[in-house]
Amino acid sequence: MYRPEIKVLDCTIRDGGLINNHDFDLKFVREVYKAVSAAGVDYIELGYKNSKELFSSEEYGVWKFCEDDVLLQVVEGIESKTKISVMVDIGRVNIDDVKPAAESPVDMIRVASYVKDVDKAINMVNHFADKGYETTINLMAISRDQGPELEEALHQVEEESKVQALYIVDSFGSLYQETTENLVKRFKSIIKTKEIGFHGHNNQQLAFGNTIEAIIHGANYLDATVYGIGRAAGNCTLELLIGFLKNPKFDIRPILDLISKEFIPLREKIEWGYIIPYAIAGMLNEHPKAAMALRDSEHKENYRKFYETLVTTALD
Amino acid sequence: MYRPEIKVLDCTIRDGGLINNHDFDLKFVREVYKAVSAAGVDYIELGYKNSKELFSSEEYGVWKFCEDDVLLQVVEGIESKTKISVMVDIGRVNIDDVKPAAESPVDMIRVASYVKDVDKAINMVNHFADKGYETTINLMAISRDQGPELEEALHQVEEESKVQALYIVDSFGSLYQETTENLVKRFKSIIKTKEIGFHGHNNQQLAFGNTIEAIIHGANYLDATVYGIGRAAGNCTLELLIGFLKNPKFDIRPILDLISKEFIPLREKIEWGYIIPYAIAGMLNEHPKAAMALRDSEHKENYRKFYETLVTTALD
Repeated sequence: MYRPEIKVLDCTIRDGGLINNHDFDLKFVREVYKAVSAAGVDYIELGYKNSKELFSSEEYGVWKFCEDDVLLQVVEGIESKTKISVMVDIGRVNIDDVKPAAESPVDMIRVASYVKDVDKAINMVNHFADKGYETTINLMAISRDQGPELEEALHQVEEESKVQALYIVDSFGSLYQETTENLVKRFKSIIKTKEIGFHGHNNQQLAFGNTIEAIIHGANYLDATVYGIGRAAGNCTLELLIGFLKNPKFDIRPILDLISKEFIPLREKIEWGYIIPYAIAGMLNEHPKAAMALRDSEHKENYRKFYETLVTTALD
Repeated sequence: MYRPEIKVLDCTIRDGGLINNHDFDLKFVREVYKAVSAAGVDYIELGYKNSKELFSSEEYGVWKFCEDDVLLQVVEGIESKTKISVMVDIGRVNIDDVKPAAESPVDMIRVASYVKDVDKAINMVNHFADKGYETTINLMAISRDQGPELEEALHQVEEESKVQALYIVDSFGSLYQETTENLVKRFKSIIKTKEIGFHGHNNQQLAFGNTIEAIIHGANYLDATVYGIGRAAGNCTLELLIGFLKNPKFDIRPILDLISKEFIPLREKIEWGYIIPYAIAGMLNEHPKAAMALRDSEHKENYRKFYETLVTTALD
């Protein structure tokens, strides 16, 4: 009953790092890598490959930079078939710093891009593909970019890029099943030679439901994180996704252990999940940054005022 | 863009009461009633109408019995168009104790029933309908009862009962969108003269997504609870559902206030929501009782063992 083409990518460390300035300790990251590998997950994304010329390594942890020597410390001595992914943002990486794939522990590089920056993204992924990496483009904030410029971007990715998958990224957690279905169908009507991916956010408790919806309509690259960790409301949970997919290569038990031992204590220290201001941002199709600022303020539970401010701002 | 036939029923006090033996204080219940009324919600369910001959009023709070005088204290002095519902279980109520609707603050009586008990349920709802109440039958644990006996029960409800709606109740939180779609379509193929309702549980973070799916395929009676409160993983959240429905009669703001003031503190005292043992029970299509027992034990975070026990038991 399973679809062998489906690939699951765990981005626990990468998306979770957005909560804590990418400051996980090595032991924790190795525990995640070990469990994700034992669970049979296809890819694990360990962070961003940002340039140290642009970001301070005093302000950010090592998973903001993902230098090869750090990644080698993660994988050392752990048996794994899970491939290593890193994400890059446009304009935040020096692409000449990236070694050929044959000399790096990294297998895949994913470029996060807005629709408007797709030319730059294609240029970057083709550079990385030429260096031997698997690549994807992840189209962020797609709920705000559904005009005709999306069609043009899709044609460009299909015709000009070497990516193996193009992701729909619901950055604002504002998609519903019907909008997800519509987007997957639009993507598939133009993208014929690459796979479609889906990365949900859980503002409205729909990250998993929308991921299922994307699967139903043909998406084969699926992002998830352990216990749903990720910026703001977090992501589709890996444990639910593995529970849903019927591929016998997956084993949920290492992930359950990992949650017991590492994620229940971690959740006491940093916050993510179903939190009302993130739900409000999702239903209003807004970036979570205002909600994140609220959660850092003394008015963190003043939901009505936050809602009214967001609605009023949107009208201005 | 909205469907005027859709009715929302808030069952915060009724389903939430399953966590705390129905022991909410009157002030809290009045705050919920006030906010749900101000939000424009169609129905509010305040508890069960169980017989005091069968359950001790020392062990259970007043919302287990929902006597008319208690309900009158809830509504007193609060402006509201929201109708009052109570739930009854088969064999746990003395139907002769129920006064005619004209003499009671209760507008609707919902009978919770397994498929196998549908004859008893029909007998009860027809009795209550004859006394002037609106009625529904809520078919519990439907994920376990999808054989031909379901078709027979649907025919009986359609042909023999006076209910205005028949609910699909995903007691185990194990439905996905496709199973929800399938059930709504099966129900609608037989139930022609009554509405279809949907009551989700959130074990797999799909209560809201499945509710949307049920709406898409024609369900018009929708259960939800404030902040998702409810037994085990809880329910579809009222705030997300109101945010999704476009009917201008709904106002989310009173619900946001209610969550800020009452539900954030309450969640510190009693537990519900996305908790791994409930997720496991949902994915294995099991009653949450084993998970609830685990959460009351000292092994509450030992997920792997719980999973393995549940899988092994299912094989026995």
